[in-house]
Formats: sequence, structure tokens, C-alpha cells
Amino acid sequence: MESVSCVNVPQVAAAICPYIHYVHARSKQKGASALLSLTRSMIKQEVPLRQIVVNDRVDVALLTSAGAVQLPANGLSVVDAKSLLSEGTRCGVSVHSLEEVQTAEQAGADYVLFGHVYETHCKAGLVPRGIAQLESICRLSDIPVIALGGIQPHHVPELYHAGASGIAVMSGIWEAKSPVAAAMEYRRMVDLVVHDL
Amino acid sequence: MESVSCVNVPQVAAAICPYIHYVHARSKQKGASALLSLTRSMIKQEVPLRQIVVNDRVDVALLTSAGAVQLPANGLSVVDAKSLLSEGTRCGVSVHSLEEVQTAEQAGADYVLFGHVYETHCKAGLVPRGIAQLESICRLSDIPVIALGGIQPHHVPELYHAGASGIAVMSGIWEAKSPVAAAMEYRRMVDLVVHDL
Repeated sequence: MESVSCVNVPQVAAAICPYIHYVHARSKQKGASALLSLTRSMIKQEVPLRQIVVNDRVDVALLTSAGAVQLPANGLSVVDAKSLLSEGTRCGVSVHSLEEVQTAEQAGADYVLFGHVYETHCKAGLVPRGIAQLESICRLSDIPVIALGGIQPHHVPELYHAGASGIAVMSGIWEAKSPVAAAMEYRRMVDLVVHDL
Repeated sequence: MESVSCVNVPQVAAAICPYIHYVHARSKQKGASALLSLTRSMIKQEVPLRQIVVNDRVDVALLTSAGAVQLPANGLSVVDAKSLLSEGTRCGVSVHSLEEVQTAEQAGADYVLFGHVYETHCKAGLVPRGIAQLESICRLSDIPVIALGGIQPHHVPELYHAGASGIAVMSGIWEAKSPVAAAMEYRRMVDLVVHDL
């Protein structure tokens, strides 16, 4: 969410949270103080704790009692993170290959975030991993695989049919004219496909 | 220490630690996994825990029981960091102005790191803050001020006479032909001036 400057992030997070399961608090370039402040603002705006996923910083998750931590590829291991967090705090791992999925799974990750599946300007110039790789990873993984990267609402059916357990969206919601309308549209597509699976 | 690639950092840290009080474990660009691994390697090389200062990441300090955390200007506040750390774990804050020193002091910082005092290629193109600003900050601070930035052994007397309680050195030791000889020389200068104060 660090690229989003024109919207009030905590307020938007509160407005969209009825339509999504989790919201990630990220502030990669700005340091732990900004991340903590963003997370606390979300809580103040009544985003439920169980829906908040703190990126990378286990210390910030501990300070806020956030429901989950998203561990980047160069972040703490799941085992180390879980040794600090209270029981029940979920740990997701960002992965880019089958090997990383298996490592995360063996370490006790609750889910993995795999991407980027489609082209996205967040990863400009990088070849997307595509639906076929997503499919093979979902087939071989015992934990939920959340698809990420360039996802538009019309992609939802093929992602779920490929085995994804969920989708993660950044620009599709945060750069939308109406983030709430966008979140509702993604959710409508997910509910439709989940109903049909 | 992230710019140091040609030396075995944990081994050098162990070799110089009899001559210094603290060694900072830093890995700003490489993520928490690299920082944790560096810190654990130092411990394995028998750098005493009380001498290890972990940069920025309170979670890594918790995982390693390091003796101190160095909070960058955009890092967690001292109050938040101390609420997670065990009693007795020291918190230093990196500061660049008198205002920041006073904020750190009021928040319960154990010391501040102030710089950069002299020109250094680590801060190429940035005007150093100089000895006069160091002096005024030391005069108005009730907690120890550690001087940082471009410090050579011959600078040690004027730094301590300006009120510094210590010095922090990066390239002067880590880029020296013999880091141990360099650490010994800094220490010799410090001992001389402290003896005379």
C-alpha cells in the first residue's frame, strides 16, 4: 500500500473490510514507525484485528496484536516468527517457486502468497509467472495458495479453477476510483465461483 | 556493515570485540532473515550477547536476546521497543538534531547516536554536522551521546572534549586492512583521552 498516497488508507481499509477477508498493512520503504502508525490507524478505524495482516515486521504485529504476519522471501522464517507470536496468529509466506512453497509448508506456514500471476505495473518489466505455474503449485501444495499480481475481477474464475484458495489485490482496489465498489466486485466474482466449485 | 562484503563479518566482530564495547549488526537492504543470520553467527563466534546491538528490528533482538537495539529515525519508538524487550535491554536512537535527542531522552532512550560529524563516503554529498553541533547537543543532553560518521583515530580527543561519551565507527574499522589493528588504535586513543578528562 506504500504507493497509495491519494487515499486515506486506514479509512478505506475500514470501508472495504466487510467485502474482504484480510487487509495487508505494508510500508516497505518508510520504516517500522510508519507501519506501526498505519496499523494502529486501521485498528482505530475499527478494522477487526483478525483481518489485519502486518507485512514483514513481527515486532509491529506483536505491538498491535494483529491477526497475521506476511513474511517476505527475505524475512524471518515461519518457525522464528511463530516462536514470538501468540498462538493462533497466522503466518503467510510470499513465494515465487514450488521450492519456496514446500519450504514454507514444512515450516508451518498457514498459507502462501504466490505471484505475480498476471502482468502488473507494480512489477513492471518482470515476466508474470502465469496461470499454469499457479496451477501446478496449487496441485502440489497442502496449504492454501493465494494468487497475487495484476488480478482483475474477470480473472477470478480461472484463478479458482487453477486451485487458488484466494486472491490478493493491490492496485485493483487501491487505485480504483471507488475502492469499495472494486472490493465488492472482486467479492461478487469470488462468491460466484466458490458457489460453483 | 552491509557494505562490507570482503570480510567475514562475524569472525571479525569476534576478533575486535575485546577492544570495543559494542558491535552493531546491520543489514538494512537484505531483510530480517540476513540480519538474524548475521546476529546468530556473531553469537556462534562468541561475541558476548551484551555487546551485540541489533539495528532496527526488535523482533530479531528478541529472537537472539541481543543486549541492545539501535532504533533508526524512522524506526519504532523507544517506548514501543521497550514494551517488547526484556528489562535491561538497552535502546539507542539514531538522531540528527537537538529536537530528536530530546525526544529520545524523554522516551527513555539509553543513549543516542549522533552524526555524521565528519565527512564520510557513507554519506557522500551530505554536509557533515560538525563538531560544534555535536558539542551543543552533548551540553544539552542528559544521556550519553555517541558520535558517528567519518571518525578517524586522530579525531578522538576533540570528540570527547566536545562531550561525546563514545564513538561509533564503520568504515574506519570494517574497511581497514586489519580491522583488529584499527580497533586497537581507536581504543588506544579513547583510553588516552578518557584518562586525561
